[in-house]
Amino acid sequence: MPHKVITSSQNTLVKQLLSLKDKSRERKKSERFIIEGQRELQLALKGNYSIETLLYYPEYVSEAQLSELKLDKDKIIEISRPVFEKLAHRSSTEGIIAVAKSQRHDLNQLKFHHKNPLILVAEAPEKPGNIGALLRTADAANVDAVIIANPKTDLYNPNIIRSSVGCVFTNQIATGSTSEIISFLKNNGIHIFCAALQASEVYHKQDFTISSAIVVGTEAHGLTEEWLEASHQNVIIPMQGEIDSMNVSVAAGILVFEAKRQRNFN
Amino acid sequence: MPHKVITSSQNTLVKQLLSLKDKSRERKKSERFIIEGQRELQLALKGNYSIETLLYYPEYVSEAQLSELKLDKDKIIEISRPVFEKLAHRSSTEGIIAVAKSQRHDLNQLKFHHKNPLILVAEAPEKPGNIGALLRTADAANVDAVIIANPKTDLYNPNIIRSSVGCVFTNQIATGSTSEIISFLKNNGIHIFCAALQASEVYHKQDFTISSAIVVGTEAHGLTEEWLEASHQNVIIPMQGEIDSMNVSVAAGILVFEAKRQRNFN
Repeated sequence: MPHKVITSSQNTLVKQLLSLKDKSRERKKSERFIIEGQRELQLALKGNYSIETLLYYPEYVSEAQLSELKLDKDKIIEISRPVFEKLAHRSSTEGIIAVAKSQRHDLNQLKFHHKNPLILVAEAPEKPGNIGALLRTADAANVDAVIIANPKTDLYNPNIIRSSVGCVFTNQIATGSTSEIISFLKNNGIHIFCAALQASEVYHKQDFTISSAIVVGTEAHGLTEEWLEASHQNVIIPMQGEIDSMNVSVAAGILVFEAKRQRNFN
Repeated sequence: MPHKVITSSQNTLVKQLLSLKDKSRERKKSERFIIEGQRELQLALKGNYSIETLLYYPEYVSEAQLSELKLDKDKIIEISRPVFEKLAHRSSTEGIIAVAKSQRHDLNQLKFHHKNPLILVAEAPEKPGNIGALLRTADAANVDAVIIANPKTDLYNPNIIRSSVGCVFTNQIATGSTSEIISFLKNNGIHIFCAALQASEVYHKQDFTISSAIVVGTEAHGLTEEWLEASHQNVIIPMQGEIDSMNVSVAAGILVFEAKRQRNFN
């Protein structure tokens, strides 16, 4: 099964790929992004992402592994070690680098499968590692959707894909401005619960079995006034230590799983 | 108030400090470590850490801020910008770098203030960021102690201090081998609850109001057989997504706060 082969790291496609990896602007403009790793790629295929090109380094990937992916042969390109080393973001890339087409993340595309959906909203999360952990938690809890308000980075940032271990592909995700999202939630009769210190109730006394959006802000600044004004009820995790802040993805995990507990994990 | 001044980054003390920052071996041998940042330093002082030397860069630190720390004047050294830049691990160091004496973290030093203590145990956690997040969660929950089994890094690793935002100084922490810790817990009548997939009960059905040690392993390998054999009851967080793993500090947060909820945050 002969494939196209790229041996020079000066190749035009290689340069395009590097630019897709490093530049959010390039990803937005071209509506393409890079997936590294076999597990991530499988999750993307399962999430109906369309793969345009697959580069593989034959020393790490067998023909059998390639066949399993069921891609058109003319999308598959073999690369040499220098090209692989130039492209690989991490040692655990497992010899596979794919160019995928971005999906849209419009609010009006969201579909809820539960009568009383449970949604996780994060406003302006900054660190890719925190976004990745939020997406892992959301996947584990099987929430109806994750909504990111005023995103500071695009979802296809390689560090988000990596730290989410591919959960960026398994969750239903929408993005929008804070005001668009608040309108959307209100129009859909979903109650807004802001994680906030002011006028708040302890989280475990709150009934989360109703349609619920759990909304978390940044560690440094919390949520904006706009969210607090739209809040059905602010909720707080009691803090009993010296420090009055928790990692945002840990806090989101505690709130989402309290909701899941109340719903008996149904 | 004239202080000693160091202006050369070739100074012997500066070299010692760099070695304390970078080398776990140096920290262990000398029983000293580096604290950066005003908040971290204040938490260390509150945690009865003894400060041997305080270096400050006057452009960022006022005399008033220095006085507040109530340190002997002869422990305080002014440094020049080149020295500060050479030593500062991060831009937010706020002009303060201190050399502190390590504390011991023996199991038999732990003191429990509750009749039925709640303890968080992590076996062989690897990433400093995860350890930091665990320590923040433990501080927020005001657990009786954090115990680290078979630590892969020393507690005074600058990345642990930073990612814990100083909670390495606010928690009661012990370290030891897995078998030492199991003996200690059993001798103190503390029930061991392992986060594990095998023979486990869903976590929220478990009674954590009794003396409880919640034990988490690594994301890659979980807990060792030794822990599973010593377990009073394994507990599991139901996972309903595509991925069957959660960030270890998020999982620990969910388990510890379920215990807190059951205890009515008392």
